[in-house]
Amino acid sequence: MSGERLDAEVCSSMMVDSPMVDGGHHSSLIHRHLREMVGYTDERIRVRYGETDQMGHAYYANYLFWFEQARGAWCRDRGFTYKSLEEEGLFLPVVEAHVRYKGEVSYDDWVTVRVRVTEIRRAAIVFRYEVYNEASGKLTTEGHTWHVVMDPRTRKAISVPPHMRDLLERDPADYETLP
Amino acid sequence: MSGERLDAEVCSSMMVDSPMVDGGHHSSLIHRHLREMVGYTDERIRVRYGETDQMGHAYYANYLFWFEQARGAWCRDRGFTYKSLEEEGLFLPVVEAHVRYKGEVSYDDWVTVRVRVTEIRRAAIVFRYEVYNEASGKLTTEGHTWHVVMDPRTRKAISVPPHMRDLLERDPADYETLP
Amino acid sequence: MSGERLDAEVCSSMMVDSPMVDGGHHSSLIHRHLREMVGYTDERIRVRYGETDQMGHAYYANYLFWFEQARGAWCRDRGFTYKSLEEEGLFLPVVEAHVRYKGEVSYDDWVTVRVRVTEIRRAAIVFRYEVYNEASGKLTTEGHTWHVVMDPRTRKAISVPPHMRDLLERDPADYETLP
Amino acid sequence: MSGERLDAEVCSSMMVDSPMVDGGHHSSLIHRHLREMVGYTDERIRVRYGETDQMGHAYYANYLFWFEQARGAWCRDRGFTYKSLEEEGLFLPVVEAHVRYKGEVSYDDWVTVRVRVTEIRRAAIVFRYEVYNEASGKLTTEGHTWHVVMDPRTRKAISVPPHMRDLLERDPADYETLP
Repeated sequence: MSGERLDAEVCSSMMVDSPMVDGGHHSSLIHRHLREMVGYTDERIRVRYGETDQMGHAYYANYLFWFEQARGAWCRDRGFTYKSLEEEGLFLPVVEAHVRYKGEVSYDDWVTVRVRVTEIRRAAIVFRYEVYNEASGKLTTEGHTWHVVMDPRTRKAISVPPHMRDLLERDPADYETLP
Repeated sequence: MSGERLDAEVCSSMMVDSPMVDGGHHSSLIHRHLREMVGYTDERIRVRYGETDQMGHAYYANYLFWFEQARGAWCRDRGFTYKSLEEEGLFLPVVEAHVRYKGEVSYDDWVTVRVRVTEIRRAAIVFRYEVYNEASGKLTTEGHTWHVVMDPRTRKAISVPPHMRDLLERDPADYETLP
Repeated sequence: MSGERLDAEVCSSMMVDSPMVDGGHHSSLIHRHLREMVGYTDERIRVRYGETDQMGHAYYANYLFWFEQARGAWCRDRGFTYKSLEEEGLFLPVVEAHVRYKGEVSYDDWVTVRVRVTEIRRAAIVFRYEVYNEASGKLTTEGHTWHVVMDPRTRKAISVPPHMRDLLERDPADYETLP
Repeated sequence: MSGERLDAEVCSSMMVDSPMVDGGHHSSLIHRHLREMVGYTDERIRVRYGETDQMGHAYYANYLFWFEQARGAWCRDRGFTYKSLEEEGLFLPVVEAHVRYKGEVSYDDWVTVRVRVTEIRRAAIVFRYEVYNEASGKLTTEGHTWHVVMDPRTRKAISVPPHMRDLLERDPADYETLP
C-alpha cells in the first residue's frame, strides 16, 4: 500500500541524528530559531495520584499524556484546536516519541510543559517538550514527538496543506488564545 | 431527543435496590441462577507496575480496565467477540459501574476476574465481576456494570435484538472459546 | 487480622440503601444539608485525547481519575492537601466507587467535576460527584466514593481523628484556597 | 547532590548515536550479538478497549505499559522477578524511552512484544522492544528504554552489582520460566 510506503519514507527521513538539524542550511536555521522563540506554549498540569506508581513518582508513560495535553494548548494559543483539524480531515498520529527523564515529579506537583514546534517537513511535524517542576524550577524531563499528517479516509500520510502550515507557523502574539 | 428519553427510562429501571432481584418471579429466578451457574468466565490478569500508585497497590480506576478485558473474554468463551458486535452496529456503552474494594492487589500479582451476565433486560445488560487474588485465593474486589445496547448511527439505546440475546444466553460448554 | 475485620465492619455499615440517609435523624439531616451547601468544590478538567476510546468518548474508567483530581481540589479549597494528610499517616483508600453515566463527554471538552463530602462516619467518608459538560451545561455523570481512614503502618482502618474531622468540616469560605 | 551528578553522567554516556554501537569493539559486538540471540522473550498482550483512542487504534502512551509488562516477563524467563529486585533494593527507573510507531494496532488485537537486553553498562541497562501484530505478522512498533540502577534509600544511581549482572546475563534456556 502506497500509504505505508509513504510512512516508511517519512520515517526514514526522520533518521537524521538530531531533528534539530535538517540540513545545516543557515537561513533556515535562523528562521527556525525565530520561530522557536516566538513559538512556545506553557501548559500547567497537576500530577494525579493515579499517575504515580509504587516507586512514588509519576509513571513514565504518563508524560506522553501530558505532552498531548500541551499540544492541544499549543494549538489553542494560536487560535485553533487540534479537534478542528481532525474535523476537516487532518489527523496527526504520532510516528515517533522520545522522552528523557532527568528528575522525578510527585503526586500533587505542578509541572509546566513547555511545548514548541521545531520542524515542519513536507508531511511531518516535530513537537519538542520540556517539563519543569514548578516547586524546584528544574527541568525534569524533555522529549519530542514526530507526527505525520494523515488523511483518515485513506489512512495515508499526506503533505501538510498550505492552510495548515499557516496555522502551524502562526505567532501566538497575533491570536487570541482559545478558552 | 427520544434516545435520551430511552436512556433515562433504562436508567430509572435500574434503580431497583439490587440488580440481582428484578421482580421475585420464581421461575425467572431459577432460570437466572442456572444461567449464572453455567455462565461465568475467568480471565487472568497480571498487575502492571503502571497500574499501581504510590500507596503501593493497584489504583482503583484500573479495575474497570480489567472488568472490560474480562467482558471480552466472556464473549470469546461463547464463540463471538465484542468487536464483532460493534462491527454489526451493536455497541454496549457502560451506563453504570459499581466496585467494592475489599482487599488490595499488588504489582506482579495474578488476579482472576470472574465475570458473568446476571441480567438481560429489554435494552440493558448487567455483568458482575469478582476479582480474586491468586496468591491468597481471596476475593479482593467485586462489582458490576450496566450496559445499554446502542445503535452508533443514532446514538440511541435500542432493544436487545433476538440474535444478540441468543449470543448472550449461550452456554459456553457448547462453544469453542475463540483464541 | 483485626484490620480486615474492621474493614468488613465498615463495608457492611455502608450497605444502607443510600449513603445520603444515615438514620433519618432530622437535625443531622439539616446539619448535613448545610454542610453540603457550603461544601462543594468545582474542579475544571479538559478531556485528553488519550482518555477517549474508539467509541469516540471518554472511557468509563477515566472518570475515576477525574474524581480523584476533584477530591484533591476539595481539600485545597479548605486550606489543606490530601498529600499532607498522607504525610501525617492518614491515608484514604477507596473502598467503594459508584458511577452513573448519563451522557457523553468528548475529546477537548471542558468538564466541571462538582465534589462534596456527604457523610463522615466513625472511620469512613463519602464523596459525591457531579460531572457537568460545560458546553451543554448538562449533568453527564454522577457518582460517589467511600473511603476509609487507614494507618499505613498497620494497613488497618482507624477512626477519623478529631483534627481530621475538623479539616473535613471546614467551611471553604473561611479558608484560602491553596494554589 | 552526587546522585544527580551520577545521573547526568549516565545520561550523557547515553548520548551515543545508537545504543547498539558502544565502541565498535569487535569481540564485544560478537558477545552482544550472542547475548541478544539467546536473549529475547516474547510477551503476548491483547489490546484493551480502554487502550484505544478516538482515532480507533491504541493510544501511543500505552505501548510503554506493554514494554514494562514485557520487561517483567523477560525477568521471569530468567528465573527471577523485577519485584524481587526491588525487594532487595535494586530499582530500575527509566531514564529514557524511545518509540517508533510504524503501524497501528486495534482493539482486541493480539500483539507480541519481543524484548531483549542490548546493553549493560556500569550503572545502566538498555531494553529493546519489537511489537508485532499477530494477525498480520508485521512489526508495527519498536523502541528502547534506558534504565539506571537506583538505590531507593539514597535515590542515587549505583553500579550494577555483580549478582544482578549475573541475573541479567542469564541464558533463559538454563532457567525455568517463573509462572
